[in-house]
Amino acid sequence: MQFIPKSDNYKQIILNHLERQHFMKHIGCRLTDIRPGYVEAVLDVSEQHLQQMGLVHGGVIATIADVAAGFAGFTLVAEGDQTVTAEIKLSYYRKAVGTRLRAVGTVVRAGRSMHFCEADVFCTAFDGEEVLVARATTTMAVITPGKTS
Amino acid sequence: MQFIPKSDNYKQIILNHLERQHFMKHIGCRLTDIRPGYVEAVLDVSEQHLQQMGLVHGGVIATIADVAAGFAGFTLVAEGDQTVTAEIKLSYYRKAVGTRLRAVGTVVRAGRSMHFCEADVFCTAFDGEEVLVARATTTMAVITPGKTS
Amino acid sequence: MQFIPKSDNYKQIILNHLERQHFMKHIGCRLTDIRPGYVEAVLDVSEQHLQQMGLVHGGVIATIADVAAGFAGFTLVAEGDQTVTAEIKLSYYRKAVGTRLRAVGTVVRAGRSMHFCEADVFCTAFDGEEVLVARATTTMAVITPGKTS
Amino acid sequence: MQFIPKSDNYKQIILNHLERQHFMKHIGCRLTDIRPGYVEAVLDVSEQHLQQMGLVHGGVIATIADVAAGFAGFTLVAEGDQTVTAEIKLSYYRKAVGTRLRAVGTVVRAGRSMHFCEADVFCTAFDGEEVLVARATTTMAVITPGKTS
Repeated sequence: MQFIPKSDNYKQIILNHLERQHFMKHIGCRLTDIRPGYVEAVLDVSEQHLQQMGLVHGGVIATIADVAAGFAGFTLVAEGDQTVTAEIKLSYYRKAVGTRLRAVGTVVRAGRSMHFCEADVFCTAFDGEEVLVARATTTMAVITPGKTS
Repeated sequence: MQFIPKSDNYKQIILNHLERQHFMKHIGCRLTDIRPGYVEAVLDVSEQHLQQMGLVHGGVIATIADVAAGFAGFTLVAEGDQTVTAEIKLSYYRKAVGTRLRAVGTVVRAGRSMHFCEADVFCTAFDGEEVLVARATTTMAVITPGKTS
Repeated sequence: MQFIPKSDNYKQIILNHLERQHFMKHIGCRLTDIRPGYVEAVLDVSEQHLQQMGLVHGGVIATIADVAAGFAGFTLVAEGDQTVTAEIKLSYYRKAVGTRLRAVGTVVRAGRSMHFCEADVFCTAFDGEEVLVARATTTMAVITPGKTS
Repeated sequence: MQFIPKSDNYKQIILNHLERQHFMKHIGCRLTDIRPGYVEAVLDVSEQHLQQMGLVHGGVIATIADVAAGFAGFTLVAEGDQTVTAEIKLSYYRKAVGTRLRAVGTVVRAGRSMHFCEADVFCTAFDGEEVLVARATTTMAVITPGKTS
């Protein structure tokens, strides 16, 4: 799908926001591609991301999916507006074991007060193969900071 | 609801698992109450948990909800079995701003191959009031490690 | 929770809408209680509602849950506004077998542009006992007809 | 994705089940394509399917999505087994107004005790154009009738 951003500065605005994104930094999640209605996030897996069975924790996968879907929605809001996650559902298709997570966030439908976004999360296994491990569907609320929701 | 655990050792088994729960340690999430079909998790909010607007990141809330709901389900499996999150949906009711997150995980329905669990996530605001900020509904798959799912 | 409706006529407005609610009539679903932030819907189960195993079809349960949650949200909008379902998730806890479905829809959080609503669906079994068979969590968009969403 | 059905008779088994699918008949929903991991369902829209604003009721869309996703999962179970919906989430992207609904159900991941399935629901508008109006993600439980779940 082809999206026209409402702000020419959408990319710079997002990059500015990332500087204050403490939790993304804390878990080592970064954005690697930012286009209208499309954002890719990547995270190198290390021991801190694992749960007790040696799999990547579901919360890590939920976070990278939320980040990719949310910033994909963010690329399409008017200058000054932002997106916040109203709801997200994740389906965990496969155990995530490997070296790297990559989330591809896309906007399925952009509206005035809400965007429907999705994210597919892939894990690069130790043999180098990248497999789909989870999918998220979300509703992102478009908010104008200062106005009550 | 009253649940009868299948294993007398459910509490000790969970405590043993927590020692290898790297991601929970990384974000400072701990269990504070473990009973049949009921688990409470707590996390003291610090800067590392925040996103760019100064709110607790949705991924942190997703993680503590997943932990509370998942371990609530874990209290009811047979010895040797485990729970993994098949899917989780989170609704974010309010902005999470404050000092502490507390998630209350409960089992709504325990089955042979899956448990339906939920978690309510509360945030203690700076004025000390605790408010409901999110709710998760989940399907937890009951797995016997070694068997293919 | 105590909700103050924005319109004194919320009940009459909903009753007027019901006259044109063809699908609810087609499946025999009616509202039995309408209060601020709370709506109850009821349906007498007959053969037309069943799937091939003799259970009430999941689509019937989804419909009555959507109706109860949606109209619960409708009680809290300004006159002229309406609610439409942005998303709904249903967890099916138990097989629905019996004589009657009853859905209790409630508003968890009412906002400016969206309401978070829920519905619990109960089935009266042939022995007369009423059991919880499903739960829905939803995001209802508040729309002003004529304005683009 | 390429799926190998466990039963050679998957198609005939499903056709037999349809004869007792009362609710599908009641709302005029039929299957138009049945392949391994893939099922298409169609419904001609008439007044009985509409809600008060003249849109196709969300419950109709939920039903056709559930049917398409569920039978897609059904094509991959062993003979004698069945699928029941454990949970379903629907995102409603656009108002459904028009003459026909078509749901495409697919299996994303087939497991031993559960299948992850999806369904995209399209509506043919009065001008003949077919648009995506909703998407469902589901967890289908694989059950052996007679065994407790």
